[in-house]
Order: sequence, then structure tokens, then C-alpha cells
Amino acid sequence: MKELLLIGIGTGNPDHVTRAAENAIREADIILVPRKGEEKSDLADLRHLICDRAKPRGEVLDFDLPVRDASGSYVDGVNDWHDAIARAWTEAASRRPEATRVALLIWGDPSLYDSSLRIAERLSPQPRITVIPGITALQALTAAHAIPLNEIGAPVVITTGRRLRDEGWPPGADTVAVMLDGSCAFETLDPEGVYIWWGAFLAMPNQRLLSGPLTETGPAIVDCRARARAEHGWIMDTYLLRRIPG
Amino acid sequence: MKELLLIGIGTGNPDHVTRAAENAIREADIILVPRKGEEKSDLADLRHLICDRAKPRGEVLDFDLPVRDASGSYVDGVNDWHDAIARAWTEAASRRPEATRVALLIWGDPSLYDSSLRIAERLSPQPRITVIPGITALQALTAAHAIPLNEIGAPVVITTGRRLRDEGWPPGADTVAVMLDGSCAFETLDPEGVYIWWGAFLAMPNQRLLSGPLTETGPAIVDCRARARAEHGWIMDTYLLRRIPG
Repeated sequence: MKELLLIGIGTGNPDHVTRAAENAIREADIILVPRKGEEKSDLADLRHLICDRAKPRGEVLDFDLPVRDASGSYVDGVNDWHDAIARAWTEAASRRPEATRVALLIWGDPSLYDSSLRIAERLSPQPRITVIPGITALQALTAAHAIPLNEIGAPVVITTGRRLRDEGWPPGADTVAVMLDGSCAFETLDPEGVYIWWGAFLAMPNQRLLSGPLTETGPAIVDCRARARAEHGWIMDTYLLRRIPG
Repeated sequence: MKELLLIGIGTGNPDHVTRAAENAIREADIILVPRKGEEKSDLADLRHLICDRAKPRGEVLDFDLPVRDASGSYVDGVNDWHDAIARAWTEAASRRPEATRVALLIWGDPSLYDSSLRIAERLSPQPRITVIPGITALQALTAAHAIPLNEIGAPVVITTGRRLRDEGWPPGADTVAVMLDGSCAFETLDPEGVYIWWGAFLAMPNQRLLSGPLTETGPAIVDCRARARAEHGWIMDTYLLRRIPG
């Protein structure tokens, strides 16, 4: 592996793939597609669809993504998991020893709450890393709702569900974008004067959108999210919160 | 004008355009291309190039973007300017009265420090607004440097040069992405322990990148930026700051 291409592919709409991403897929020697857990068929199928549309000259290889050990500390668990994924990439790529240009399709964009760049640092010898940007869940969310992320000249905080739950509304901004929230952390906030724009399965055919004052819309999201998750077996969602002076 | 398409086109690399953006350009009745000030030919030419590649069935119409009156208060000036732009869109679209589907190509993504959604609200009668997401300058920056935007599970603040200058380092985050900075606001910070990743003309052939400790790299950026600006007559740049515990 001389070069590793980390290719952002957006969040589910194959039309959100850029020309640059298609070119990179087309020119890779192999494209590694992870298979994992419950999301397995939906997301792996979508990656295969995106590959097929790009007409790759190389081979598309499935590999099993290691499972994270959630029994010990969070940080240790993540570190061990990243080591294991780096080994899995190396092993999968070594199935085609002649392949020097290896591609991975990254959900959203490789820069935003994604581990690929950190996993790539563990590869030895270190390949050249090329990043192709992709549409993030935040852009899919704001596009679907046709809203701006920021108010005029104002800051935005991007944070995680865990942080929102543990630390409350982050200081210094009236707009907060929340990602990686497995359990509706917005329920822990005082909802008064807060608006929410929520989306699940963003840019996918089964996209769900809800927006409104958090007082009323919060419970509706909790309900919609539980039903959508039960129906699909998994869910990916994100949301924007904005304090609106009343 | 029954429908207004706000199409994110990325920050300068025509290959950063998505399939969805190309489809939207192709299906619009007219595509309005603004001509303005110093950036005029470079950016308008790029918009024309992106249109041509999408093979639009409709017509591409240039129009003159009104100039902002910077003499009064900032907020009044922006409000008046947005009114004037809404009138300019309406007038340009009315040159083809049969056109109901009007497209605008938006630099980066329509959600991020862009006024189009707010200007669109002023249109009367109100058309349907459709947003096509695009690659932002932040993704172009992190891709070019091959770095993640966030640290593991940590928040990120997106803010403006003006805010950074007036209010200092924003509270609650060790990573700050700065946009709309016309005058190197990072110079007003204590540079100790801070890293910077900077890019100008991101994703364009004349892209400039610099990164390193702010103590050394800050002055290099000031110098590089001044030279690049003198050379091109205009500049667009953005940067990421990260406090790294020493």
C-alpha cells in the first residue's frame, strides 16, 4: 500500500458523490468495503452501488470490520479497536499484493467525527494519505430543511450527544449542531426558547425530518426515532439546536 | 419564479461538484451568474465552466450584483444590500418570463456563512426553495491538509475573523475554524501552544497551504497572504486553530 485514498461519499444519496470521488474510486487498485453489524447490508450495499456507478478499474473487496470491545475504558477500547481496524485494512489489502493504491469510502467526510485519518496513522509503512472531501450529515441536514447553519456573522458549535448530555448547552454560541447522539441528549436541556431541526437517514430514500420548538418537537422526535430504529434495525441521525430570543 | 435552486458548488475545483448539483444545473430553466468587483472574472468564469460541464438545457444569464453600502451601520448596510440582491435576482429572472425554475450556484455550501437563503426569503411571491449541498471551504481545508476537523469526541467552534478579533478564543473548545477573516485575526491571539492549518484559494489550481505552530507559521501566513492577494487582486482563505497541550 503506497497510497491510501480516503474518499468522502456523503450520507446516503449516491448523487451527493462528487466527480473527484468518482475519479478516485475509478483509479484505485482496490476499494475496501467494510461489513459490520446491523447496518451491514444497507450501508455496504450503498457503498457497492456508489462503486459500481463510478465504474472502477480496480477490484472491490469486502472485509469484516472488527468489533469494538465496550467492556473496558472508552479510550482504551477505541485505541485497541483502531489498531485492529488498521490490521484489517492491511490484511485485506495484502490479498492483492500488486495493489499500491487502496481506497476506502468514508461516510460523510473524512474530517468530521470519523476515525479513518487516525487509523491511517497506524499503518506501517506509512502510505501517502489523500483525502477527497464529501458532503457531511450537517450539510445534508441543513439542505433538507433549507436552513442556514449559522445566524448572520454568528458562531456555531459542533459537538456530540455525549458532550451535550454531560456538559449542557456549550458556552459562547446560540447554535449547536449535535452528532453521534445515540440517545436523544436534547431531552436533558431546558427546551424553552430552543428550536430543533432533526433528520434521520439523511439524503436516503427513507429520510425523516422534524423541526419546531423543542418543547413540542422534542417528544415527537423521540417517538419518531424509536419507531424508525425499530423498523430499520439501526438509525443514523443528527440535529441542529438554536436559541431564538423570545 | 416558482422554484429557486440554491446549488452548492464547492470552493473552486469543478470536480468537487456533486452529481446532484450537475443534475440541478442541467434541469434549471435559467442559471443566474453574478458579476462583481475584483473577483469578477475568476469566479464568474469558474461558474460558467461548471455550468458548461453540466450541459444545461436552460440558459445561463449574467447579472450585476449590487454593491454593499459600507458607509452606515453594518446591519443596515447588509439588510439594504440583501433587499437589492433579491431585486436583482427577480429582475434577471424576469428577462425570461417563461422560466419558472431558477438556479443560483453558491460558493461552498448554501448553509455556511452564505446569504442566499436569507435573500431568498425576501422574494415575493415566495418560490419553493431547494438546496443542493456542496463541499465547504472547511472540508476543502481539512482534505488538503489531510487532518480531522475535530479531536476524538471533542467539540469544534466555527466562527468569523471579526468574532475572533473582538472576543478572543471562543469558550468551550480547543479547535476553532475561522471563516470570513479579511485581516488575519489570529494575530490577536496568544500564539503559545496553538497550531494553525491555513489555506487560500482552496481546491483551486493556485491553492496555498501553510501549517505549523502559530508562533512561527502566523507571520509566514501574513506574508504569504499579502503576496497572494497582491498577485491575484483578491483572496479567499480560511483556517483551523487547535490548542495542543504542551
